[in-house]
Amino acid sequence: MLESLKQQVLEANLALPKYNLVTFTWGNVSAIDRDKNLVVIKPSGVDYDVMTINDMVVVDLFTGKAIEGNKKPSSDTATHLELYRQFSTIGGIVHTHSRHAAIWAQAGKDIIAAGTTHADYFYGSIPCTRKMTEAEIQNDYELETGKVIVETFNQRNITPKDIPAVLVHSHGPFAWGTNADNAVHNAVVLEEIAYMNLFSHLLNPTLQSMQQTLLDKHYLRKHGKNAYYGQ
Amino acid sequence: MLESLKQQVLEANLALPKYNLVTFTWGNVSAIDRDKNLVVIKPSGVDYDVMTINDMVVVDLFTGKAIEGNKKPSSDTATHLELYRQFSTIGGIVHTHSRHAAIWAQAGKDIIAAGTTHADYFYGSIPCTRKMTEAEIQNDYELETGKVIVETFNQRNITPKDIPAVLVHSHGPFAWGTNADNAVHNAVVLEEIAYMNLFSHLLNPTLQSMQQTLLDKHYLRKHGKNAYYGQ
Amino acid sequence: MLESLKQQVLEANLALPKYNLVTFTWGNVSAIDRDKNLVVIKPSGVDYDVMTINDMVVVDLFTGKAIEGNKKPSSDTATHLELYRQFSTIGGIVHTHSRHAAIWAQAGKDIIAAGTTHADYFYGSIPCTRKMTEAEIQNDYELETGKVIVETFNQRNITPKDIPAVLVHSHGPFAWGTNADNAVHNAVVLEEIAYMNLFSHLLNPTLQSMQQTLLDKHYLRKHGKNAYYGQ
Amino acid sequence: MLESLKQQVLEANLALPKYNLVTFTWGNVSAIDRDKNLVVIKPSGVDYDVMTINDMVVVDLFTGKAIEGNKKPSSDTATHLELYRQFSTIGGIVHTHSRHAAIWAQAGKDIIAAGTTHADYFYGSIPCTRKMTEAEIQNDYELETGKVIVETFNQRNITPKDIPAVLVHSHGPFAWGTNADNAVHNAVVLEEIAYMNLFSHLLNPTLQSMQQTLLDKHYLRKHGKNAYYGQ
Repeated sequence: MLESLKQQVLEANLALPKYNLVTFTWGNVSAIDRDKNLVVIKPSGVDYDVMTINDMVVVDLFTGKAIEGNKKPSSDTATHLELYRQFSTIGGIVHTHSRHAAIWAQAGKDIIAAGTTHADYFYGSIPCTRKMTEAEIQNDYELETGKVIVETFNQRNITPKDIPAVLVHSHGPFAWGTNADNAVHNAVVLEEIAYMNLFSHLLNPTLQSMQQTLLDKHYLRKHGKNAYYGQ
Repeated sequence: MLESLKQQVLEANLALPKYNLVTFTWGNVSAIDRDKNLVVIKPSGVDYDVMTINDMVVVDLFTGKAIEGNKKPSSDTATHLELYRQFSTIGGIVHTHSRHAAIWAQAGKDIIAAGTTHADYFYGSIPCTRKMTEAEIQNDYELETGKVIVETFNQRNITPKDIPAVLVHSHGPFAWGTNADNAVHNAVVLEEIAYMNLFSHLLNPTLQSMQQTLLDKHYLRKHGKNAYYGQ
Repeated sequence: MLESLKQQVLEANLALPKYNLVTFTWGNVSAIDRDKNLVVIKPSGVDYDVMTINDMVVVDLFTGKAIEGNKKPSSDTATHLELYRQFSTIGGIVHTHSRHAAIWAQAGKDIIAAGTTHADYFYGSIPCTRKMTEAEIQNDYELETGKVIVETFNQRNITPKDIPAVLVHSHGPFAWGTNADNAVHNAVVLEEIAYMNLFSHLLNPTLQSMQQTLLDKHYLRKHGKNAYYGQ
Repeated sequence: MLESLKQQVLEANLALPKYNLVTFTWGNVSAIDRDKNLVVIKPSGVDYDVMTINDMVVVDLFTGKAIEGNKKPSSDTATHLELYRQFSTIGGIVHTHSRHAAIWAQAGKDIIAAGTTHADYFYGSIPCTRKMTEAEIQNDYELETGKVIVETFNQRNITPKDIPAVLVHSHGPFAWGTNADNAVHNAVVLEEIAYMNLFSHLLNPTLQSMQQTLLDKHYLRKHGKNAYYGQ
């Protein structure tokens, strides 16, 4: 079942090492079939260079049970499912420990919009979540990770469509998109922005966000109904 | 028409990923035929690995209208055209978001001439423009980007021949040269200098420009009528 | 003798340039046969691209004498042997001058646990040893290097199983594991963590260790009897 | 004439891009025949990917005149010749603008011996020359560059054998060795050390030189009559 979606998820997972976003097995991509409420996700701890379409695991959006596949799903599956349940506009999710996004997550800082590379994809700061509580870590940790991401977006009044990534405090990034491929695309952009903004900050320690007008201009020329970038 | 120029522009565009100056489609190269007042430029948002000579777009220098080509020209076309109109000595232009040049643009700082690598190609600081105004951003943004670059060179009394690149504030670099290939060459040098000068600055926060005499020596041994570098 | 172990050690040594952990011959891997008390180690100063299984040297765990092989063993052999003698749980050892781990060793600082990438492999700070004394350096330097590593673990009351790496002050890292391959794996992770934590520290100079609860959670979901990561 | 030496110099020049020490043509290697007092050096401004043995230029050690070859020698030839004349123990010289060595040269700072990677090859700080005077820059600049290097070694009472590299202020590194290949080897090590020491310094701004005893131990176990590293 879901052979086409499995193929997309496999290819998106294999794109992670290609874009230098992962070391060993430190990343996972999933995608959802919104009609069937089923999610296809990478298996846990399987090397990218031996991974095949048959390793992909199909899990139920609400119960988290594996419906198909003979491998255990990613240990981060509960986080993915919570994001799919709460963020109805997203079709694919990526989690990595990509170097520079993780550097910001470890530093516990938002990535402010410091330039048009950021503004072309993210309509404002990429938030870093609060630290998780002891209770959240000890009980249903992966589910609670999803919940703290959702809480962050709700409290800041931002949408997953406008800001397709988050930094989980002391951990690393999750990125998402309309499908698995688009989620990986956003994860690549996030890593690029994380690199640039790190060194812009070191070069100019009082770095401020760019002007709102310029942020609007760049985000909206690529997104929204008046977009004019691309063919 | 302009098949030879199109081929040069195609090759120059394909050189951008080769030199690690671009991620995805974040860059564009153009070149001008000064006799015909026509500019050949990369199409908007087309992947480098599927781009062919037929994707190149020919636009009119003064009207900006596409004369030939079945794709939309780069969204930055109006910036290129303004530079060609005002900088009569240049034959090719490159725009990228190359990491270290963009870091300086985001930090809003000029790249001072801190060493001979810089002096071999740039006869003084590489300027960062002022921030653009709300009006400039909201109306004819890409044209105004070109105008603020020209303004920067005029106000500082520097020439595009002596300083073949600029940093647009909160955005990224434009570089140029005698033709498309030479413009890419200068964009590579700019990125290299941006890297070196970033870390020289972190290592020595009171870093000053090099001596004028040394800047003169290195620039003039490669450029101008008494140049003696190369065959 | 020990052909299988030699093959493992050869492959582990060849993995060092593959993972960009070494320049020239600046690294060595060994593994131990605990039944025979024999250690297989890389020869001294032999290029990775001409190294074969016959270059591997077999040395006695207690005497350090070469039992087999027509090359001199690594100049760091006495350090490896001391670690095998005192750390009974380890089966393989790697020494490199990998860039970012060496940066921390040169700075003389522990790498604190600043995020889950660290916590997935190291159950607390990766210690930097004290400086060695004049007497230690002048007499049996390589043996004393092993002793100062062991002293560091004893004084801090940490185990080589929980913290499979160390930074030797003003020198570089040693990492270890259950076998040669696992030791290289840990050396790769160490380098990755060293990179991330370096820049997290530059971005946030008051960086603190992560919460103990989160460190427990991540370490214990991959290690120990209740581990649930992987297949 | 000197076909074997030309071949060595060609191969050493081609090693520069292989080790990522150069961009475009920004580097040159030479070697000397001490019996004939002839130096073989790379031509000026020729691309590495089209360079052949016939492009190598033979110049006279004392007059600097091209004895053989139909290309102009490197514009830095006079610097090389001065070093060969004054440093009688060296057989090959490399000049590059390798990124991290150039960063230190631009910052105008010595690279202190901060760890054993440094101590394995350089017996103390790698000096940065003083700035050159106006007169030195305007008259016989390349010759004077050699003279200021020699002055630096004389004033500090260090030998080119113990410290096989220098940073020319606001410019970049020269490295040397027993022959062309060994000079390139030292240039690679210099770049590696420059990288490590840069970030050790950023991590620990009060970084001091390593202990003299440890510097002695590491340098002397690889160099001098009691060396015991390698086969």
